Amino acid sequence: MLHISALEKLVHELSRLPGIGPKTAQRLAYYILRSPSEYSVRLSEALHRVQAEVHSCPSCFNYTDNDLCKYCTDPHRNNESLCVVEEPSDIMRIESSGAFRGRYHVLHGTISPLEGIGPQNLRIQELIEKLSSDTRQVREVIFALDADLEGDTTVLYLTKQLTGLGLKLSRIAHGVPIGGNIEYIDDRTMSRALDNRVEL
Amino acid sequence: MLHISALEKLVHELSRLPGIGPKTAQRLAYYILRSPSEYSVRLSEALHRVQAEVHSCPSCFNYTDNDLCKYCTDPHRNNESLCVVEEPSDIMRIESSGAFRGRYHVLHGTISPLEGIGPQNLRIQELIEKLSSDTRQVREVIFALDADLEGDTTVLYLTKQLTGLGLKLSRIAHGVPIGGNIEYIDDRTMSRALDNRVEL
Repeated sequence: MLHISALEKLVHELSRLPGIGPKTAQRLAYYILRSPSEYSVRLSEALHRVQAEVHSCPSCFNYTDNDLCKYCTDPHRNNESLCVVEEPSDIMRIESSGAFRGRYHVLHGTISPLEGIGPQNLRIQELIEKLSSDTRQVREVIFALDADLEGDTTVLYLTKQLTGLGLKLSRIAHGVPIGGNIEYIDDRTMSRALDNRVEL
Repeated sequence: MLHISALEKLVHELSRLPGIGPKTAQRLAYYILRSPSEYSVRLSEALHRVQAEVHSCPSCFNYTDNDLCKYCTDPHRNNESLCVVEEPSDIMRIESSGAFRGRYHVLHGTISPLEGIGPQNLRIQELIEKLSSDTRQVREVIFALDADLEGDTTVLYLTKQLTGLGLKLSRIAHGVPIGGNIEYIDDRTMSRALDNRVEL
């Protein structure tokens, strides 16, 4: 039987991370070996803590290590707008823009018939229940989903489900990025930017 | 006191790895969270094993988890040539070329007066002892060190120390890489390629 050395095993595990190829994994493994052993102990502990402590927020399904996540518990946020996102990482992206101060709801994916992901595999039922509740404070729902087939399908499905609840529904704008050169914009983005032109 | 969440801690530890910025670290941490928990257990174990099992080979100072490393114990390798490298990772690079079948010696750095690294901080004494031994089989020493100031200084120093031992000393060629476009080669590489031109 082939003996797998400890170093080869570490390279193998690191190379399973997204964007980390075998060469980068080797470089990282050698860095870890050269570092004082406290570093790998701290990294191990961090991995362990994340698995043990982090879970879904029962209200918005963001990741948290408390009962509720920090966006659900923050008393300074606006209860009237709710932003629907695909993944918890999208929240960080939106937060760092500083342009939204409402609450979130994480679907954990989008509807994708090709991959066999239907509404029942996502946090859609919970969203509908939350928005159908008598004690609801939400007035506007903003969909911040990707502008691909799955994102479009999901927005269409949710719009249908939420119509009649008296909510303002909107979707973030898709178009030419700020600082983007018009010459290099793809056809679909340009077509969307023209369709959604803003009156001056 | 600011509470550091388990996720922030993992992002922080990952972002200390070379070439991993805060955004990549965040992406990796989210990937780890989404993965089944066995992955982070396996990664932790691999980190632990590397620290517990991997040490320097007492003969060549490559990393190994056995008494001697696999290049020192391989009976099919040529005992007459010894390749001197800076770091254990350089051995993998040379091995993957398939062009060298001798033994190795890892210095673990190069002489760098600016960083306060002298010959006594490297595995130079051990190299000299190995090559001065009566039972020596080595006939040629090949220096495969970087072509920078520190590499040049180290080659110069070692050449001085090893002269008189009846060894053939050589250094790997530096020049235009295979497939490299001459138009884009820097001055120092071109100057070295001209100096070391090979007669046809």
